Amino acid sequence: MLGLKHATDKAWAVRACDHLEEILVDHAHCELKAASNALGLAARSPDFPEVARALVDLAEEEIRHYRQVVSELDRRGTPLGKPPVDAYAAELLKRVLASTRDRSASASLADRHLVGALIEARSCERFRLLADELAARGRADLAAFYEELFVAEARHHRTFVDLAAAVKGEAAARSRLAVLAGIEAEVAAELGSGASIHG
Amino acid sequence: MLGLKHATDKAWAVRACDHLEEILVDHAHCELKAASNALGLAARSPDFPEVARALVDLAEEEIRHYRQVVSELDRRGTPLGKPPVDAYAAELLKRVLASTRDRSASASLADRHLVGALIEARSCERFRLLADELAARGRADLAAFYEELFVAEARHHRTFVDLAAAVKGEAAARSRLAVLAGIEAEVAAELGSGASIHG
Repeated sequence: MLGLKHATDKAWAVRACDHLEEILVDHAHCELKAASNALGLAARSPDFPEVARALVDLAEEEIRHYRQVVSELDRRGTPLGKPPVDAYAAELLKRVLASTRDRSASASLADRHLVGALIEARSCERFRLLADELAARGRADLAAFYEELFVAEARHHRTFVDLAAAVKGEAAARSRLAVLAGIEAEVAAELGSGASIHG
Repeated sequence: MLGLKHATDKAWAVRACDHLEEILVDHAHCELKAASNALGLAARSPDFPEVARALVDLAEEEIRHYRQVVSELDRRGTPLGKPPVDAYAAELLKRVLASTRDRSASASLADRHLVGALIEARSCERFRLLADELAARGRADLAAFYEELFVAEARHHRTFVDLAAAVKGEAAARSRLAVLAGIEAEVAAELGSGASIHG
């Protein structure tokens, strides 16, 4: 799905639904980090005004999703609590940075967009699995929510690939994406089985 | 104004209006940094859900202001360009961090809120001066825009002071604010005369 090179085991969705409140807490923090990351990338993109604009739009959408997840937590009386450590995202970024000697600002910016694209793709895949498992358990409302987010994450994946293409050109972005997808697959296979969105 | 201990010279507003496009570019970047900073603080405030919520609201409002300033730049055909170095904010944060030995998470969080409160107060003071100078030059539309922002920044100042009080108590927050206002006054007096929002 969306170029991912490692498929999440369906058992992940069973574990996730068994620990739904942990998943919701982790998910809320993921949305906030995504929004903050998008604004940080926008600030680093003054030479690409359309890129900056798209990232600010993205940040606003992530903030809306954050609010929706927090509302669900409030409804359940679950406190948001501290963000769980996101070993997946940290490890992915570390390995991607270690995979290149090109330290130019545009290469680094494009890599960050492509990492964004891969994280969105992974979220997209997992929200699909989560929506299906929730539906199978008769949780139609929450299933519908994750169904909507599945669609949004697919769109964000595309946006990030387009942004990388705007910065370094279409062909170069596609070819680098394939390399990074290989790295992401290793990280997801090693770290991606816990009861968290990516962990 | 708002507890500031150093008044900006009115000559600053004259210089700012003489270099209005530099001011607009700097202002756009300030709004983006403010939004990103607010989301970062929200992520660091899981033990204070109301604080996190207020910060996310603030981030959304800063994003709206960013868009408004970018629209004004677009209307003028001025590219956004790279962010000018914000020596004022960097120096303020550095001196505030150096002013205490209390390295607890809550003290550090409250100090960041109070730094936010002071930056908002300084922006508020300067938008007032800018609005007056723009009005005197017959630039009624832009004067009205900065008049609105003057009101918003006063509100943000209050929000940040309330957030610091939520984290460390009202009396302690007020007394620390007075100390930090002294530091801010020094930084503003040393660095605050250029054609930028705080510089």
